Amino acid sequence: MLSWSRAQRLVGRSMSTGMNMKNINQKVINAEYAVRGPIVMRGMMHEEALAKGEKRPFDKIIFCNVGNPQQLGQKPVTFFRQVLALMDYPELIDNPPPMFTKDVVARAKNYLARCPGGTGAYSESKGIRAVREDVAKFISKRDGAEADPDRIYLTDGASQGVNVCLNILIGSEQDTILIPIPQYPLYTATIALCGGKYAPYYLNEENGWSMDIVELERAAAEAKANGQKLKALAVINPGNPTGQCLPYANMVEVIQFCEREDIVLMADEVYQQNVYGGYCDAMSRHRTPAEVEAEHKFTSFRRVIKQEKSKCQLMSFHSVSKGVVGECGRRGGYLELMNIDPEVEEQILKLFSIGLCSNIAGQIMVGCMVNPPKPGDASYVQFVKEYDDMYNSLKRRSHKLREALNSMPNTTCTEIDGALYAFPKIDLPPKAIAAAAEKGMKPDAFFCIELLDSTGICVVPGSGFGQKEGTYHFRTTFLPPESEMDAVIERLTVFTTKFMNKYA
Amino acid sequence: MLSWSRAQRLVGRSMSTGMNMKNINQKVINAEYAVRGPIVMRGMMHEEALAKGEKRPFDKIIFCNVGNPQQLGQKPVTFFRQVLALMDYPELIDNPPPMFTKDVVARAKNYLARCPGGTGAYSESKGIRAVREDVAKFISKRDGAEADPDRIYLTDGASQGVNVCLNILIGSEQDTILIPIPQYPLYTATIALCGGKYAPYYLNEENGWSMDIVELERAAAEAKANGQKLKALAVINPGNPTGQCLPYANMVEVIQFCEREDIVLMADEVYQQNVYGGYCDAMSRHRTPAEVEAEHKFTSFRRVIKQEKSKCQLMSFHSVSKGVVGECGRRGGYLELMNIDPEVEEQILKLFSIGLCSNIAGQIMVGCMVNPPKPGDASYVQFVKEYDDMYNSLKRRSHKLREALNSMPNTTCTEIDGALYAFPKIDLPPKAIAAAAEKGMKPDAFFCIELLDSTGICVVPGSGFGQKEGTYHFRTTFLPPESEMDAVIERLTVFTTKFMNKYA
Repeated sequence: MLSWSRAQRLVGRSMSTGMNMKNINQKVINAEYAVRGPIVMRGMMHEEALAKGEKRPFDKIIFCNVGNPQQLGQKPVTFFRQVLALMDYPELIDNPPPMFTKDVVARAKNYLARCPGGTGAYSESKGIRAVREDVAKFISKRDGAEADPDRIYLTDGASQGVNVCLNILIGSEQDTILIPIPQYPLYTATIALCGGKYAPYYLNEENGWSMDIVELERAAAEAKANGQKLKALAVINPGNPTGQCLPYANMVEVIQFCEREDIVLMADEVYQQNVYGGYCDAMSRHRTPAEVEAEHKFTSFRRVIKQEKSKCQLMSFHSVSKGVVGECGRRGGYLELMNIDPEVEEQILKLFSIGLCSNIAGQIMVGCMVNPPKPGDASYVQFVKEYDDMYNSLKRRSHKLREALNSMPNTTCTEIDGALYAFPKIDLPPKAIAAAAEKGMKPDAFFCIELLDSTGICVVPGSGFGQKEGTYHFRTTFLPPESEMDAVIERLTVFTTKFMNKYA
Repeated sequence: MLSWSRAQRLVGRSMSTGMNMKNINQKVINAEYAVRGPIVMRGMMHEEALAKGEKRPFDKIIFCNVGNPQQLGQKPVTFFRQVLALMDYPELIDNPPPMFTKDVVARAKNYLARCPGGTGAYSESKGIRAVREDVAKFISKRDGAEADPDRIYLTDGASQGVNVCLNILIGSEQDTILIPIPQYPLYTATIALCGGKYAPYYLNEENGWSMDIVELERAAAEAKANGQKLKALAVINPGNPTGQCLPYANMVEVIQFCEREDIVLMADEVYQQNVYGGYCDAMSRHRTPAEVEAEHKFTSFRRVIKQEKSKCQLMSFHSVSKGVVGECGRRGGYLELMNIDPEVEEQILKLFSIGLCSNIAGQIMVGCMVNPPKPGDASYVQFVKEYDDMYNSLKRRSHKLREALNSMPNTTCTEIDGALYAFPKIDLPPKAIAAAAEKGMKPDAFFCIELLDSTGICVVPGSGFGQKEGTYHFRTTFLPPESEMDAVIERLTVFTTKFMNKYA
């Protein structure tokens, strides 16, 4: 599969005798990361070919493989970027360009005063204290319970936080992390690199990808019966790729489970701003607004732990890459620790210190995200408009995409409570499965490559995230600009219809 | 040692029953990273105390523990920062502030055209192609031999590049990396995290920290006799913390050694711009300018490999953190691969893809560093002035610090060819060693803590870098601003004199 692409890359390069596939770290070879895997590389090759004037059945590649909103034209939030521009070139502060409002200048001044080296100096390894204080205030307000800036670590995106935590947790081959299936493949990839194991617990697609505690118990028992040592439970809420938001009562069960098993809860909450709570439900008018509110809003695991007076050990992650901020290229994020042994925390700090610190512009972006303009600030009106426009647009697009998917043959898509993705199930006909097998491909990968080659739409097969044996899915973002969304949906519909007919 | 500081951090926090020092990844506990270790934390606590109005024998902490020029007041280069400000807020491009020259605007426009998502979108995992092309041109010109943008990976600082490479190289406990002693502790720390071993080869202080091939052979033979498997040789050139530049003939021996052993050469060349080649020698007038030139200039390992038509496998690292750029907080850098098995390279790409991409502003800074304004560009005159002023100031400070160190009692410092550090030897009297032992401290750590507590100058003990048994050193940057350098040197001299007298 795809051997022509590799062959092309190998042309004209000699094989070395030294380091080779047999003697490098085999854990790297075992790691898989489909979000940037062979289908995406094929998409990039199509793109290069188009740039060279070669003919394809489409005029551009639409990268729906990764939640990268600004690549697809999403505009950055003005306030955030003006602050950054001033931080990067502080000479502008005394004489700012006319469109820079007072609060932008004040914010940049404040951060510069509190990190004297500016964006060009290493900060302390945990990150700039002023920003960590802003994060602590944000968390405190969000959860109605005080947070401590010293328990917060600013990271190069949430990925680095997850990486550091898994590196702390996994020390032997039997060390095991419970992960959801489907999952974001950062988890399985990093666990493989750390040389540990994962125990999959399956989300229940029939019930809107809900998290069933019985299933969690089953997964834990099976792992323990195999001699594995449970170290942590990873939960992605809102779900990636599955888009569900966990209800409060379910979250209480989860923290109780972690306490019973005496394991750490890793809460990946990077989509906490991307909650379209009840929008689709409200459309279908099956429930009361209060029911919708209660079942579909985002609640942090931290809030649940505080409210339940639990001692559950928590590592939680957030990022500037998602939400309506969408600053993926900035690589900003944070990790918050709760109920973690202070000696262990020192070891976590040491891990961060070996990488020196996360990038400062990313840290500043975290500060802006958690402390945006307030009512009365000069930027406030513009900020709210930009924020709401973006948020409502994401909401509309998620709804439109889901409806469209559900109207395509052999395709069903659950409610999308949150995040940036649809993860529809595709019932592939036996002939399609046979055609895939003939090419040595997984059935869903076959579907995705055919989709890419005929429409230019680049999505990721469900097998890259994990799925119940015998079911097939793909993940697509709903990030193409609203003006192009209808055309993308049209192309996807036409392709799916043709594909299903062809192999019916 | 320093238990009061830890005790303070532990106050009021409960120990969890779950994750603790016994069941976390023991490799993390084994890793040591002194550049941000306990002495630096003590410095930060002094700083906090001063901020609260507490009395200390000094009015501020001078952090000479880490090469972080902008923290100590070094001004960023105008061109670089103006380009970044435009990239972060592209609305300024059509109506730029008056001090932004034409070439700044053109550069920002060019990069934005070639990475349409700007600084807020993920790039491909290797980094923006336009920047990698700039890097390839820079390398081609530097080495007089064509470089390939596809062999270049943009990284979050050089540290990430080193981390990825060590993760590829080390797959078992016996996998061994040859590292210089003294070394930059990123190497031993990361090797420990990867679960491999290192084999130390000692640099020869008596001969200006030269790299002796006989010593290298000894280290390799000893490791092999212990059943270890050699995977790579790490060389830091110009040296950190030792400041030497390797002569060409020596580099030829090094690549021949790597070919004989069939191991990878990891060339850490982040200080390639920080070469004060022959300045000190010229002062002492012992050599001809040609001799000085030949022995003290920077040559890349890549150039040597190309010139010698060698097949040596090379991983080389560069960074925007050092040089006269000094943009540490940006976390920008690159890794170049040469003669590496293409299949292995795919695995390296996969490792990068799991972290998605390095931060885009850091990538842009790499582009600016390798492709600064050219003669005729509107920014050129200012750029050259800023560059030369900074470079000459670093040169003067390195010279001044070295002279001062050599005039202090029991202190000797070799020639500083390059980098940002002095690594003087301190002959500690037996009574000082005994006093350290009484406090349960290493002798050089004792010296450094006493120095910090009485002067506020924060340096790192030689034991954090490794040193020949029975010798003691410390590493200090020469980055305090030129206006403060005399005062810093005065304080250091007074302290050292008192210390040596006290324990004589």
